[in-house]
Formats: sequence, structure tokens, C-alpha cells
Amino acid sequence: MKALGVGLIGTGYMGKCHALAWNNVSAIFGDVERPRLVHLAEANADLAQARAREFGFARATADWRDLLADPEVDVISVTTPNQFHADMAIAALEAGKHVWCEKPMAPAFADAERMLNAAFSAGRIAIMGYNYIQNPVIRHIRTLLDEGAIGTVNHVRVEMDEDFMADPEALFYWKSEASAGYGALDDFAVHPLSLLWCLFGHVEAVIADLSKPYPDRPTRDGGRRAVENHDTASVLMRLPGNVSGVLMASRAAWGRKGRIALQIYGSKGSILFDQERMNEFQIYRTDGRATEQGYATVLTAPHHKPYDRFIPAPGHGLGFNDLKVIECRELIAAVAGMSFHAIDFAQGLRIEKTVHAMARSFRDRRWVEIAA
Amino acid sequence: MKALGVGLIGTGYMGKCHALAWNNVSAIFGDVERPRLVHLAEANADLAQARAREFGFARATADWRDLLADPEVDVISVTTPNQFHADMAIAALEAGKHVWCEKPMAPAFADAERMLNAAFSAGRIAIMGYNYIQNPVIRHIRTLLDEGAIGTVNHVRVEMDEDFMADPEALFYWKSEASAGYGALDDFAVHPLSLLWCLFGHVEAVIADLSKPYPDRPTRDGGRRAVENHDTASVLMRLPGNVSGVLMASRAAWGRKGRIALQIYGSKGSILFDQERMNEFQIYRTDGRATEQGYATVLTAPHHKPYDRFIPAPGHGLGFNDLKVIECRELIAAVAGMSFHAIDFAQGLRIEKTVHAMARSFRDRRWVEIAA
Amino acid sequence: MKALGVGLIGTGYMGKCHALAWNNVSAIFGDVERPRLVHLAEANADLAQARAREFGFARATADWRDLLADPEVDVISVTTPNQFHADMAIAALEAGKHVWCEKPMAPAFADAERMLNAAFSAGRIAIMGYNYIQNPVIRHIRTLLDEGAIGTVNHVRVEMDEDFMADPEALFYWKSEASAGYGALDDFAVHPLSLLWCLFGHVEAVIADLSKPYPDRPTRDGGRRAVENHDTASVLMRLPGNVSGVLMASRAAWGRKGRIALQIYGSKGSILFDQERMNEFQIYRTDGRATEQGYATVLTAPHHKPYDRFIPAPGHGLGFNDLKVIECRELIAAVAGMSFHAIDFAQGLRIEKTVHAMARSFRDRRWVEIAA
Amino acid sequence: MKALGVGLIGTGYMGKCHALAWNNVSAIFGDVERPRLVHLAEANADLAQARAREFGFARATADWRDLLADPEVDVISVTTPNQFHADMAIAALEAGKHVWCEKPMAPAFADAERMLNAAFSAGRIAIMGYNYIQNPVIRHIRTLLDEGAIGTVNHVRVEMDEDFMADPEALFYWKSEASAGYGALDDFAVHPLSLLWCLFGHVEAVIADLSKPYPDRPTRDGGRRAVENHDTASVLMRLPGNVSGVLMASRAAWGRKGRIALQIYGSKGSILFDQERMNEFQIYRTDGRATEQGYATVLTAPHHKPYDRFIPAPGHGLGFNDLKVIECRELIAAVAGMSFHAIDFAQGLRIEKTVHAMARSFRDRRWVEIAA
Repeated sequence: MKALGVGLIGTGYMGKCHALAWNNVSAIFGDVERPRLVHLAEANADLAQARAREFGFARATADWRDLLADPEVDVISVTTPNQFHADMAIAALEAGKHVWCEKPMAPAFADAERMLNAAFSAGRIAIMGYNYIQNPVIRHIRTLLDEGAIGTVNHVRVEMDEDFMADPEALFYWKSEASAGYGALDDFAVHPLSLLWCLFGHVEAVIADLSKPYPDRPTRDGGRRAVENHDTASVLMRLPGNVSGVLMASRAAWGRKGRIALQIYGSKGSILFDQERMNEFQIYRTDGRATEQGYATVLTAPHHKPYDRFIPAPGHGLGFNDLKVIECRELIAAVAGMSFHAIDFAQGLRIEKTVHAMARSFRDRRWVEIAA
Repeated sequence: MKALGVGLIGTGYMGKCHALAWNNVSAIFGDVERPRLVHLAEANADLAQARAREFGFARATADWRDLLADPEVDVISVTTPNQFHADMAIAALEAGKHVWCEKPMAPAFADAERMLNAAFSAGRIAIMGYNYIQNPVIRHIRTLLDEGAIGTVNHVRVEMDEDFMADPEALFYWKSEASAGYGALDDFAVHPLSLLWCLFGHVEAVIADLSKPYPDRPTRDGGRRAVENHDTASVLMRLPGNVSGVLMASRAAWGRKGRIALQIYGSKGSILFDQERMNEFQIYRTDGRATEQGYATVLTAPHHKPYDRFIPAPGHGLGFNDLKVIECRELIAAVAGMSFHAIDFAQGLRIEKTVHAMARSFRDRRWVEIAA
Repeated sequence: MKALGVGLIGTGYMGKCHALAWNNVSAIFGDVERPRLVHLAEANADLAQARAREFGFARATADWRDLLADPEVDVISVTTPNQFHADMAIAALEAGKHVWCEKPMAPAFADAERMLNAAFSAGRIAIMGYNYIQNPVIRHIRTLLDEGAIGTVNHVRVEMDEDFMADPEALFYWKSEASAGYGALDDFAVHPLSLLWCLFGHVEAVIADLSKPYPDRPTRDGGRRAVENHDTASVLMRLPGNVSGVLMASRAAWGRKGRIALQIYGSKGSILFDQERMNEFQIYRTDGRATEQGYATVLTAPHHKPYDRFIPAPGHGLGFNDLKVIECRELIAAVAGMSFHAIDFAQGLRIEKTVHAMARSFRDRRWVEIAA
Repeated sequence: MKALGVGLIGTGYMGKCHALAWNNVSAIFGDVERPRLVHLAEANADLAQARAREFGFARATADWRDLLADPEVDVISVTTPNQFHADMAIAALEAGKHVWCEKPMAPAFADAERMLNAAFSAGRIAIMGYNYIQNPVIRHIRTLLDEGAIGTVNHVRVEMDEDFMADPEALFYWKSEASAGYGALDDFAVHPLSLLWCLFGHVEAVIADLSKPYPDRPTRDGGRRAVENHDTASVLMRLPGNVSGVLMASRAAWGRKGRIALQIYGSKGSILFDQERMNEFQIYRTDGRATEQGYATVLTAPHHKPYDRFIPAPGHGLGFNDLKVIECRELIAAVAGMSFHAIDFAQGLRIEKTVHAMARSFRDRRWVEIAA
């Protein structure tokens, strides 16, 4: 696959993560030409220069629109705060660039729809940064489900929990404002939903309960301010094929750091996974003698593709940032017109639609059906 | 506490478990007089004789009503199938005996109510066999919550899963008949509910989703019969004090054997427990330096009362049957007029009321409030 | 198997444990007549009376020799401190009683030899209280090894660690005196050795390193006293069939409570076990597809005999005290002339011989061979 | 720190790993100038060209000596098979280049000594690729030990196990030849030794037992060939400060994939770590109330430096390859004359000396002292 010219907007953590992916993808995979790191944009000109040097980009600018005009740029990584995604992604697509945009698409559903329309109109590749689905474990679980390794799935539970909002005495900040969204639902639940899309496809119906662990939080001036969204979300779900499910998310769950815990139950076995131990999964199967049946804890290994591209020995472990390199490889495949495994804007929009349906089910205290 | 004369109805597993408890309670606790094992009833006269010999009972009968008339019997263990609980417990209470009845009270709510009324009228002790709450771990968690060890609780999740109904090709049997109840909801969820009652008190509102992993099961004649109740239940709950909760139960969860997994999140920490590893719990607290914060896996030890009565050294482990000995000790305390930790008929009825509310919320697809 | 008349010497924890076993063995197993609890001896006459009442013994005495003369006593449980074992066991055997003696046999090897000789001369059953080998997990591991489930074993590691001597500021007490033995070696290592005997038979050669985590400990008078034995022991071993092994023991290992961790490596798989989670084991096997190979965590279940005698459902868990009931059942079988699974005085002596060889290998800083 | 010109010899897995590190180090750390990837050597000219393109190197050659003459090359990564290390590293040092050499130094101790002498003579930086010590967990454990977080250490156990030699029917290959070294001892034990050096410094005395799980292995021609070295090694050790230790290593341990399990016991607590779960460690400490004491499982987080340079959120996890980036940063610091944390040739030689002492202790069946 031929070399792409890369533009990068934003150099915070996700920008760095994209930069690492662009730097590593050819060394890791071998089957793609080394991308040319062409142009980097960061609000502050000096910072832009510094980051370009660190990240290996040839040019730097304080005006992200310079990337649109740069003929050497084929694809643009959008890693800025969520409210800028729509404008940047749409402008990039309209300028004929492919887009690799961090999740979520946009706070407002209408903006997300505009993004998808822009991708359709431009006929360019538009991929979301849902990197958890790139974990070789998740890819292997998908293979296992396809093979019927645990029979027909009938029940799923998924939990996503962190504790960065767990301290009731931490200062109120923008994440607790209504304008920042529903809370755990859009901040977190989109990730489990990306996994559910990847493994099961559609969510058909939901009823959610949202709650506020803390009604208010302290402010800098010594007062307290009411929390405007919900740090905890619990959702009953129905998925295709008579699968019942539960999705739970909390950003106020003390002790949890990067937990995305899956439980998948089928007619012949079950599978467990937790992103906090991202290099292993557990599988229980009913074959063999009952006296030795139990959950097998499987460590990732070269046979769990594409782990082999990173390390030739089993049990040595990928890191979180490595998932972005795999995602990058999928993006490049997409641009090359090959089949790819990633969440594009169309699927991304479905995820956001599901989140909004969950919020509605909470507001109305009733089940909400979601059209496919 | 003085010696009680004991009658036992039923000698299946639970009957054996009661018999062991009556045999062990004085040796274990030391502070109760050794009970006199007076009279045992089992439907078959020969079996009754054999069991009386094995279990150490003085007399045996094929007619359980003989126990009512036996003046040496002070308390009667009722361990027969659920449909007999009401008649036996009520008759025993009316005969002036104390009653120790296995869970649940009765399949029909009206029968359960009659049982409670009988206990009130008789002025006798009437205790249910909810033994999981007797685990020293659960008792210690209750202490921790009372002390505020994890601050104010804001979210709870509890899962009870086994796999004895997980095989879709296992023959249809009575547990799948509508007459056997709702399925996972009353068969299983009562146990997590007993823990929730013990730790948090009331459940205020619920909405449940029930599902059938398998629509039908094979019959002995080579046909298939429709399953009439639900092997999986998922419930959103509201508990007092702004606590949101999720209860999940499945008797078709391959790989789970005796799982009752609790997650309790508070403003200063969290607590985890799983009955499959009943001799340990995990606690995360926010005190101390952040760089060493993590879930501490605590093994039970003599300081987790009444573990010390069983074993003087830490980390050696109680067994499931030991919980019944603790329950027995609580029953004896109750009879002696002392404070006790057990679920009596009044609390037992509230648990069953909650289960029926859950079933109604599923039927009507709406939240159901439960009066305290 | 017919009813035995039981005498019990000693009513500390192990005495209580024996009493529970005698009380429960017929209810649990069904295939043995309920033992008659005849005569109990405890140094203090009042305490003897109280314990007899609690434990269900008919008679009590402050003179253990009364049990020898009691014609109703068939078997005597010896649960007193180690230095009394030899005299009591030998007297009991000479009086024609069977003996169930807590481990170890005796501090001095010569005394242990006398005990074995007494058992031979008397032609009576003489069993040691090495209860860890009675765990259904250990019994099942033995079956797995016999079946070749992990092929031919080539390497074994076993660790026994507790932390009751881990506090350097705990007062000096008798366990640190030379007269109490070598330290971790005889206090602890005998248990792992009982497992090794059960699983592999003989230990052929050893070289040990013993160490003192703390050279001295505080005394009550504010001074410090030199520690006279070794709280930590590490041993390289050779076992039959080209098996290399390592045995590690510490009673100063902070965090460990009742750890006995086994690792067994074979040509087709491996097995792990830790007594702190006594109701499970892990097995790795090379059959099946590599992509799902991993350690299976197997929870004990009725098919792991004799778990089924205690509980009819999987994953509910036995306790430490239950192991003694199984041991009691084996003793009764032995008395009935049936095959049994327990460590008798002959095997017990071999374990103590091995311990002494380890101590010698440390003293002489060289490998020591042990005759079979 | 200023930009280095980089040469790379060898492009197998370790070559790729070095290349990734050179590509990433400035983006990750920010405080080093982006290295210039100047010249790459690989035996095959075409492959060299291809790899240079993939890895981002400007020039490629089939003759590694071309790198010595390249004035733009400041530092050379040596990642070829072990037998080439000495010649290449010495030539590079003599050419005035800094050297980053994969472990071990050389099969023959004399060659390793020559390497160290060359480094001394050249006055250049010479660092070994012992990357496990770069894990933020290991660095944090070192800090904890320095702080006395678990008091004074008295006992250490370390196990390194994999299963790539566990199949007795795998074809005989060069790793089983005597010329390849002692077996597990030099192939594996050097890694645990690197951790011990990092955490405790010197090993004072050792006695090892080596064993051959399989005496012979099949050959391609249908015959069998005797195995010439030992796949399993067990070693008793003495470390400074009255610390006793055990080192165990096996490359025939079915089920183990990349296990390096540490147990460190001190007077106030203990620490556990296993490289298979490289993003966590466990710590037990004696402060606080006994009822909640247990091993805390701590997930790595930004406060475990330099995790923060990779990911700003806790619990997301580094990968094995990331450790090489940290090592690269240490090398650059060393070149810049700053303090650094890495194993240089002097320490590397001590590790190899210790390995040879272990082998001698096995041959002579006696303890061997090792001069500091």
C-alpha cells in the first residue's frame, strides 16, 4: 500500500498517539509504505514547531486550514476537543482529504449527521478512533463468535468504569456541565457500544437509568455547584437474535482505572475480557471432561493477529498505544480500497444514535426501540 | 443459651445441612448448650430410620406431624420442597414450635403472607435459611459500610450466576415449568436480595428484563417442549439514599458455578466480593499514597467474626456448610431472646414482594415502585 | 463400617477439629456407622467437663490414661502439643487402641521411630493428621497425574508460607527456641512434603538453605534474645523419575496466610494449586487449538470426590475443617481393613526423615541423599 | 539532549524493536532531540533496503562495517545473534561509536570481558538491552525498596518460565546444543538477574541444580539426538544484607509464556510482580487495620514514571515494546553525560559472571561464592 501524506490537527495525548501510529505503522506491519509526515497543526505556533520536531513532521502551522490547502497531505488526523470535530472533519473531507477522527463524532447529533454526509459526498475514507476494537483479543473473540466456539450467544454484560470523577471533593469542571453531554453515557458508553457493534451489530431496544453519585461539587470560590449530568449509567438492552444485555458505565467507580469488562454467554460456553488486563481473555467451553472444565485464561500470542506484527513471542503484551497503530493500518487499507476493520462515520453515527436513545429512555422512563 | 430439642423435616441436602449445623453448633461456638436431636421426619419410614442414625437423631418418623406432637421438640427445621413450606411451617408455629425454614417461603405470595401471620400469632421465632448473609465476609462488609469505610455508597451491582440450566440439550424438567415460578428471578435473585437487605435495607423501585436463552428443550420422548419461564433476569434498581443498582441473575451462564458477585461503590472507595471465592473480599480505599492504591484482596481471618470460632489461623477458609452453623447459632440466639442476625419471616416476605414487583415490571415493561 | 468408640486427648483447636470430624463423619458419608463419642481427656478437669458437653462426649477426665483403660474406647485422637505425641500414641497402641495422631510424630526422630515400632507391634491402625492431602483437589491432581493428564512430570515447585512470625517486633516465644525444632523446616515443610509423598512418593536428595530473617527478637523485659532457629527454608530436591524440585517455606512471609502453592510441570501440561484458594486448581493442557490454550481455573464440584458427600452443587466450597472429616472417614476405613488414603506412621516417619536430611544438608552445605 | 545519528545492525525482532524505539523516543519523551536514522545493516542487501524503508533509515548496507566508517553515525544498535555481539560491539567502540547491544554480551566470558575493556578504552557509552528493568513497575519497586516501604528485605524468589521448549516431540534445534550455552541458565536466568542487580545489587553465593526434562529430542531424519544442555535451572542464592533467595528458570514450563515472577519479602510487607501482567504489581503492607490487610493489586498509572510519557490516564497499559523506548531514553541520557538507569557493560559482565558461577556450582555440586 502506497505512502500517504499525513496531516495532524491537535497534539495533545491523542495527537501524540496518532503521531506514534503514523511513525510506527510501516515498521510494524511491513506491508504499507512508510507515511510521509507532512504537516502538523497546533493552536500555538511555537508549540506546533516543537511538536513537529518531536513527532517528525516536516511542516508546522498554527492554522489547521493550512493542511487543507497542502497538496502533499492525503489524510488528516483530527484529534482536537470534541466540539471541533465536525468543522474540521467536514472541511478536510471537502478538501478531498481522508479523515481519521477521534471519537465521538460530535456532541450534537445533527453535526454528526453532517459529518457522515460530508464523507458520502466527498467519497473519501472517514474513520473514527474507536481503538478498543483493534485489540487482538477483541478481534479473536469476534472470530470465536463467528466460529460458534461458544455456540449461540444469548446474554451479554459489559461494564466500563473509571474513577477520575469518583472524588466528591474534586473541583467542579466542564465535564459536569450539561453542555458536555449526558455524562457517563456519551463519555464512556460509546466504547462498550463500539465493542458491541463489532461483536453483535445492532442494539435494538434500551432502557437506561442514569444517576448522580454526587449532587454537587465544590467550586474554586469555596461554594458548591450542582452537577448537571450523570456519572453513572445502567442500561438494559436487547440485541439481535434474542440476546439480552446489560451495559453499565461509571466514571465515579473508585478503584477502576480503565475497566471495560465483557461477559458473553452462549449455548456452549462463555467468554470474559477486561481491558485493564488487555493482553488476556478467558474462555469456558463445554467440550472435554467435566472434571477439568473451567475458565481458561489465554494470554495473547502471535497467533492472535496482528499481535505477531508487534512481537514474535507469546505472553509479552501489547500496550494501549499499540492499538492505535493497528487502527492506522486499517485506515491505510481502507484508503487503498481493501477490506478493513474499523468504525467508519456510518457506524459511528449509529453508536451515537444509540446513546441518544438511551438518554431518551431515561428521560421518559420507558423502553426505546432503535431502528437498525 | 440452653439446649433446644430439635425436629427435622426433610433429609435431602438441606436437611443434611441443618443436621450438621445442629450437630456442630455447640462445639463450634461453645456458648450454646448442645442441642438434643430429638425427632426426624422423612417421607419414607426406612429412610427416616437410616437418616436418624446417620444424623444422630433419637427418633424417626414417616409422618412429619409426629414432630408437632412431640413435647421434646422445641424447634423444627423445615427443609422439604418449596410447596410444602407453608403448611409445615404454619403447623409447626401453631403447635408452639420455633421454625427454621429453608428459602423461599412459598411459591405463592399469599402463602408466604400466611406464614408470617402464623409467626406473629404464635409469637415464636421464625427464621429463613438465607445463609449467604452469614458469611463472615458479608458480615464484615456490613461493618465496613456502617463505619463509612468507603464513604457514602452510591452504586451497587450484584450478579448471581450458575450454569445448571445452561445446556440447551438437557431434558426439560420441572424447573422450566411456569408453576415452578418466574425462573432465575425467584430461583436465584432472592439470594442477592438477601444480601442487599442485609447491606442496604429496602429496594425502592425496579424494572426488570427477563429472557429465555432457549425457547424450548428436549423431552424424553424425543420431542421438544416450550420453556415456560426465564433463565436470565436483569434488573435496574433504586435503593434508599440515592443508590442506583443493577441485579443480574442467570441459571444458564456457562462457567459460573456458585457466583454471587457484589460490587459496591462509595464516595471513598469500593468493595468487591464473589461467593465462588467465599473466603476473601477486595477493598479499594483512597487513603494513603496514590502510587500504592489498588484493590486489596483480604483473606478471611479470626478477626472477621465468627471465623475465629471455626479456625484460629487466617487464610484457612470456611466452607459453604459452615455458613449454616452460623445461621443455627443466630436462630438459637433469637430463641434465647437475644439480638440476632438472620432473615426472619417478615424480612423474607419483603424479599418475595420485591421479586414479584420485578416480575410485574417485566410484564408491564415499566418501572415499579415498592412500598417499604 | 461399624461404629467406633472414640477417645479424644486434647481440646485445643485440633481437638475441636477432631471432635467435629467424629460428629460429622456419618452424616457426611452415610457409609459409616455414627461413632460413639465416649471419653474425652483435658488437663483441667472442669475444662474437660465443659468440652465434653460442647463436643458431645459421654465422659470426661483430667487423666488421659483413663482412656486407655476404657473398654468402650476403640480409637484415640491425640491432639496435644508435639512433645506428648510419642508417649500418648505408644501407650494407646499398647492398650490396643487405634491412634489418630496430629502431625508431626515427635520432635526427636528416635521417638518417632518408637511410635512406628509400637504401631507395628500392636497391629493397630496409626494415622497421622496430614489433612491437606485430603482436599478433593489434591486427590484429583493425583488422579490426573496417574492418568498422565499432563504427561510425564519433570519439575515441581512447592511453597508454604505464612506470616505469623513475620513481625520482627513480636515478642520472642518458644517457637524461636532451638528446642522447638529447625523452624520453618519442621514446622511447615512437613505439609508440602505430605503432598509430595502423596503425589510423587519419595524424595531422593536435597540441599537446603535456611535463614533467619531476624537475628533476634524483643523479650518481655525490654531486652532482645537471639533467634535460635530458621524462619525461612529453601530446598533443592531430586524426586524419582528425573523430577527436579524446589521446596520453599517461610513463616515470616508478610501477606501469606495459609499458602501452600504447588506448581507441577509435565511433558503435556502443568497444574497449579494454592491452599489459600483450596476449592480450585489450574490446569494447562496442550490439546485443542493453540489460540485458546491457557490455564483453566477449575472450581471443585461433586465429581471431585468426595466433595459430593458435602455438597451436591459445584463451586460452593469446602472449608479447612471439612478436610478433617475426610481424614476421619479414611481412618475408619483403615480400621475396617479397607484400603485408605492417609499418611500412616510409616509414611509419617519418612517425612520426618526427609526433614532431618534437609537440616543436615544445610549444616554441612552439601547435597544429602535419602534412602527410600 | 541533542540529536544522535543512529546505526542499526540486524533487523530481526530485536532490530525492529530498536528501530521502533529510535522512531518513538522523541515523541514519547519530548526532552530529547529526534534521532537521525542514518544507516542500517542487514546481511542481505535487498532486505537491508526494504527494512531501511520500513524503519525509516536513510541508508542501507549489507556490510555492517560500513556503519563504522559513517561519520553521521554516533551510536550503533547491535541486535544480531549472540555470537556476533563481541566483534561488532568492539569494532563499533573502537570506531568511536556508542553501543547499544542486545543481551547477553557473548557466549564466552572472555569475549564479554573484551567487550567491557573496549568500552573502557574507547570511553564510549556501552549499554546492554536488559529492558525488563525499564518497566515502570520495576522502577517503582526499586523506589519502594529504597524508601523502606516493606521494611528490610530478607527473602526473595524469582521465577522465569516459558514453554517454547516444553514439547518433547519438537525437533532438536540449536538451542539444545552445548555450544548454545547452559540452557535455561544463560538463556533465561540473565533476565531475573538483571532485576536482582537493579533491586538488590550483588549476588554473593549460589548453588544450582540443572535438569533436563527430556534426555533427547527427535531429529528431522526420524532419529533422536541427546539434549546437551539443561532446560530447567533452580538456584539457591545469598544476597547482601542477609537476604536469602531462590531463582528458578525453565524454558519447558507448559503454560508459561513470558513469566518473570518476583516475590520480595521484607520486615514490614511484601511485593509481588509477574511480567505476564506487566502493568500491575501487588503490595502487602502492615500499616492500617488488620481486618483490611491484603495484597493490593496496583495498576500502573502516570505517577509510576515514565508511564506518564506514554499515556496520561491510569490502567491503560504499556506494552513490551514500550520498554525499549524507555531504555533508548536512558541510553541517550547516558550519551549526554546525565545519570541513567540501564545495565552497562560492567554490570552486564557481572551478570554473566554470576551465570557462570551457577553453572560451576552445579558441575561441582557445591556452593560457589562470587566476588563483588
